[in-house]
Amino acid sequence: MLGLMMQTPLLLSSILSHAARSFPDVEIVSRVPDRPDHITNYAGLMRRSSQLANALNSAGIKPGDRLATLAMNGYRHLELYYGISGIGAVCHTVNPRLFVEQIVYIINHAEDRLVFFDLGFIELVKTLMPKCPSVERWICLAGAGEARAAGAGDFPTYEDMLAGQAQSIDWPQLDENTACGLCYTSGTTGNPKGVLYAHRSAVLHSFAAALPDACRISLNDTVAFVSPMFHAMSWGMPYCAPAMGAKLVMPGQKVDGESLHRIFEDHGVTFANGVPTVWLGYVQYLQSAGVRPTTLNRVLIGGTACPRSLMQTLQDDFGVEVLHVWGMTETSPVATISKVLPRHRSLSSEQRRNRQVKQGRAVFGVEIGIRDGDNNELPHDGKAFGDLVIRGPWIARSYYKMPESERADGWFFTGDVATIDEEGYMQITDRSKDVIKSGGEWISSIELENLAMAHPEIVEAAVIGVPHPKWDERPLVIAVRRKGSSLTAAELLAFYEGKIAKWWMPDDVLFVEELPHGATGKLLKTKLRELYEDHALPSVALARTGLA
Amino acid sequence: MLGLMMQTPLLLSSILSHAARSFPDVEIVSRVPDRPDHITNYAGLMRRSSQLANALNSAGIKPGDRLATLAMNGYRHLELYYGISGIGAVCHTVNPRLFVEQIVYIINHAEDRLVFFDLGFIELVKTLMPKCPSVERWICLAGAGEARAAGAGDFPTYEDMLAGQAQSIDWPQLDENTACGLCYTSGTTGNPKGVLYAHRSAVLHSFAAALPDACRISLNDTVAFVSPMFHAMSWGMPYCAPAMGAKLVMPGQKVDGESLHRIFEDHGVTFANGVPTVWLGYVQYLQSAGVRPTTLNRVLIGGTACPRSLMQTLQDDFGVEVLHVWGMTETSPVATISKVLPRHRSLSSEQRRNRQVKQGRAVFGVEIGIRDGDNNELPHDGKAFGDLVIRGPWIARSYYKMPESERADGWFFTGDVATIDEEGYMQITDRSKDVIKSGGEWISSIELENLAMAHPEIVEAAVIGVPHPKWDERPLVIAVRRKGSSLTAAELLAFYEGKIAKWWMPDDVLFVEELPHGATGKLLKTKLRELYEDHALPSVALARTGLA
Ligand SMILES: Nc1ncnc2c1ncn2[C@@H]1O[C@H](COP(=O)(O)OP(=O)(O)OP(=O)(O)O)[C@@H](O)[C@H]1O
Ligand SMILES: Nc1ncnc2c1ncn2[C@@H]1O[C@H](COP(=O)(O)OP(=O)(O)OP(=O)(O)O)[C@@H](O)[C@H]1O
Ligand SMILES: [Mg+2]
Ligand SMILES: [Mg+2]
Repeated sequence: MLGLMMQTPLLLSSILSHAARSFPDVEIVSRVPDRPDHITNYAGLMRRSSQLANALNSAGIKPGDRLATLAMNGYRHLELYYGISGIGAVCHTVNPRLFVEQIVYIINHAEDRLVFFDLGFIELVKTLMPKCPSVERWICLAGAGEARAAGAGDFPTYEDMLAGQAQSIDWPQLDENTACGLCYTSGTTGNPKGVLYAHRSAVLHSFAAALPDACRISLNDTVAFVSPMFHAMSWGMPYCAPAMGAKLVMPGQKVDGESLHRIFEDHGVTFANGVPTVWLGYVQYLQSAGVRPTTLNRVLIGGTACPRSLMQTLQDDFGVEVLHVWGMTETSPVATISKVLPRHRSLSSEQRRNRQVKQGRAVFGVEIGIRDGDNNELPHDGKAFGDLVIRGPWIARSYYKMPESERADGWFFTGDVATIDEEGYMQITDRSKDVIKSGGEWISSIELENLAMAHPEIVEAAVIGVPHPKWDERPLVIAVRRKGSSLTAAELLAFYEGKIAKWWMPDDVLFVEELPHGATGKLLKTKLRELYEDHALPSVALARTGLA
Repeated sequence: MLGLMMQTPLLLSSILSHAARSFPDVEIVSRVPDRPDHITNYAGLMRRSSQLANALNSAGIKPGDRLATLAMNGYRHLELYYGISGIGAVCHTVNPRLFVEQIVYIINHAEDRLVFFDLGFIELVKTLMPKCPSVERWICLAGAGEARAAGAGDFPTYEDMLAGQAQSIDWPQLDENTACGLCYTSGTTGNPKGVLYAHRSAVLHSFAAALPDACRISLNDTVAFVSPMFHAMSWGMPYCAPAMGAKLVMPGQKVDGESLHRIFEDHGVTFANGVPTVWLGYVQYLQSAGVRPTTLNRVLIGGTACPRSLMQTLQDDFGVEVLHVWGMTETSPVATISKVLPRHRSLSSEQRRNRQVKQGRAVFGVEIGIRDGDNNELPHDGKAFGDLVIRGPWIARSYYKMPESERADGWFFTGDVATIDEEGYMQITDRSKDVIKSGGEWISSIELENLAMAHPEIVEAAVIGVPHPKWDERPLVIAVRRKGSSLTAAELLAFYEGKIAKWWMPDDVLFVEELPHGATGKLLKTKLRELYEDHALPSVALARTGLA
């Protein structure tokens, strides 16, 4: 028997309507280069998103059409989020920092009809244009004057498109499973794959992310989207924060430490999201300038593991709580968050941090598990590690145009390798493609990297497996030293002694000037494996492992 | 085009599974008369709910069957919530405080197959049995020994039912729109009507109620269900609090001020829900005993309007935040909550209280409006008042077995009359059945009651419209004086002077010993109208109004 409750669909247009109705004058701030901040509010967002929707309708855009953005965080990008999805079309956020070939691949794969681009990407667009036949129009996110001044006078502009359109619209009552957004993965382990979000998944994710034990988003908050709106939809914040009535702040291009501190202080930011690199820059600026945040009280850090020292500095020195989040483009992305439990109150701050550095506990709504090679569930004992699997209403079922990626058992295999402890804290030990398989056992590349980076003279380190005739693979450390350091390979290896099992000992260390990073700031181990697959391991190192 | 996200249904069994997985050892405390507190945890709740589900399956209970409870708040009642709904049957919570004829009407209307009852209701059950032919078994919520000791040795017991059943079950993956619970309205304005909740509505309501700007429920909380589990499912807390991993406390029968204070202090309660009467008793106890709550930090008050003085005492004297909520059985029930906004920080505490005494702003997910007699939307100016309407995924579409109650326009008409101000605060000015229609205009009975109750010698007051040959209806005050008071009708009417428009002036005042209340503690104006419909209004009073 079915219940007798209303079948109101969960739609993004309902989020926008709620914000415009309940919080019409709450501000939306966008930092624009060399100009005063652009300030609008939720009533304004509703008006202009409606204009955009009307413009798209009259331009013949149909439900299901993919419209791409090549843009940084700002009010026009937010209007695109709501205006496009509101009429049942798909807002496809493209990462402009990817290699040109990847962008071309993505736009062609998505068959985008329109591309909206920031003026800053005009050169990129000119390169892309001849290679993307599905795109009917490239529209620059500017007014006509601005566009001309930037040498983009030949392009149609966003402001011309909106001009004269009605400022309101009856948003269609779509099926809540209608696609609303498309975002490709970061391309860290191979070609990016398309994740097609639905209105339902985005609304449910907004509820979950805002909960007190997740990000605790409230109308008392001022939320800065530091994470780009093309990286897993800035982690869902452009949906979640308006639903809760938070004031919004979009920093635009500049996310260096000083720029962040400025905008946070100027607008009273209380909450922000971003990858560890961004926060490293932020604390370095605070330290060198001798200043402190006065309104920021918590940050959501994820994308790659949050270093313990960063956590410590933010929390202990600056009083900013770190919410360590794990997620993927495929998980909308908030899936697990690492926070301490009531029972940890009596622990030392170091012991509490032992929990926080893990990737965290599943938020309400999703379920996680770990599996061995034969797909058996592994124990949650903090030791057993295996393939991390996840399911829930904001987890991808399959990739766009890859129906074969759907699994019959209803679980999503993340490609991460993890442990889960007795308290439910999940810890990523590796990516399944990065794990080093030595003599039938697994060595965690991440653990070896973290140990290397704990050495005071190491700035960054990557550990990859290189082929070995007897042991299949053996670990190789590739590291960047602090400027002026003369640390030797032997010294670094000695630093590992006693900290790991003997057979985990890396076989060699190479020092380099720089490590390759992907478009969302992640280490590109694929590149490193290409470069070093023929690296000959010195027998001396192997001797040290006791395996020779 | 549909998105490619998982179609994981929103189910109550997922809440239970999440709680058992993520918070297995978080406590569930039930106070039992004359015994030490019963303490279990979420792992235990899962085990016993599974046993119940297995028992129901083997007893031939089918999806859609209605199984009733006549029970106070306690762990067995919670097991019934999850065990019954988990297999797709419907947990029908019956209010044992209703008149016998109403209970008989409800059980027969619902066609309940089983009734689970607390031993305390054994006499009631004996009265009901011959009148409820659909009920196949009356099962007492006790073990065999307890049942015998209470003279219920002839009844099957809940503990016998569970004994020997497997402690785990594969919960079926139901359609999320499957009915999970049935609750009849309080019967304040007529016969109770059945609201048939769905898994989807209950889960979405849990998300919304837990949000930081609603009840802010977290794993750091200890939540007491003070509101009975048969009154709009204790306001959804038995679903919401386990989803968030809060510790639970169920006070059982005793909700007098002293008992509440004891159990709050014994178990560190931080949050509790209840009608104003309960909190009046609570603060009276605190005041007379000269004690203070040490862990309680907020209370959810609704069901009828929260008096300003109660709010003030709780907040200013005892540091307990009041969350004033408006809702109905038909709205799951959390619909609006009254809290101050960031912009009110600079106001005086009295000005802030002016917001809090209103019934509040719509929580994310529901939309409210007010309509005039011709169904036109009225302005949100804090002055215009009309029929309050609401819609959203946890609002009833129609009543059980009353398909004619469904409206084509998708809105639910609440039967309440309200204003909505520029800031979105809704204020109930009356029930549409209680509003006094005088000369084509409306007089708010609630406003006249509040004014009477602001008089220091008045304990409680009701205002009803009595028929009038010329003006249709005129207001009559029926009031209870403080013990020993000799306040006169004329004095009370004089107290109104200057506080209301002249034509609102009540025509007469009657003093009585007691006012009639319904089963959830609300004033029964239906009863009063029956009693006083022939009351002759003195012409002297009418003279005072300027209308004679
Ligand atoms: N807190 C975290 N700690 C460690 N790793 C994390 C954390 N958060 C995210 N990650 C990593 O990021 C991945 C998700 O990133 P994203 O969706 O941006 O694309 P990607 O996996 O890097 O790229 P691709 O899937 O195209 O190879 C996760 O699978 C995980 O490996
Ligand atoms: N905070 C509040 N302030 C004023 N009135 C409230 C408040 N909360 C609830 N109410 C009243 O309670 C009503 C809902 O109560 P409930 O569902 O328990 O049944 P009822 O309306 O009293 O009974 P019935 O519908 O059977 O006549 C609302 O319609 C409203 O009139
Ligand atoms: Mg990935
Ligand atoms: Mg009612």
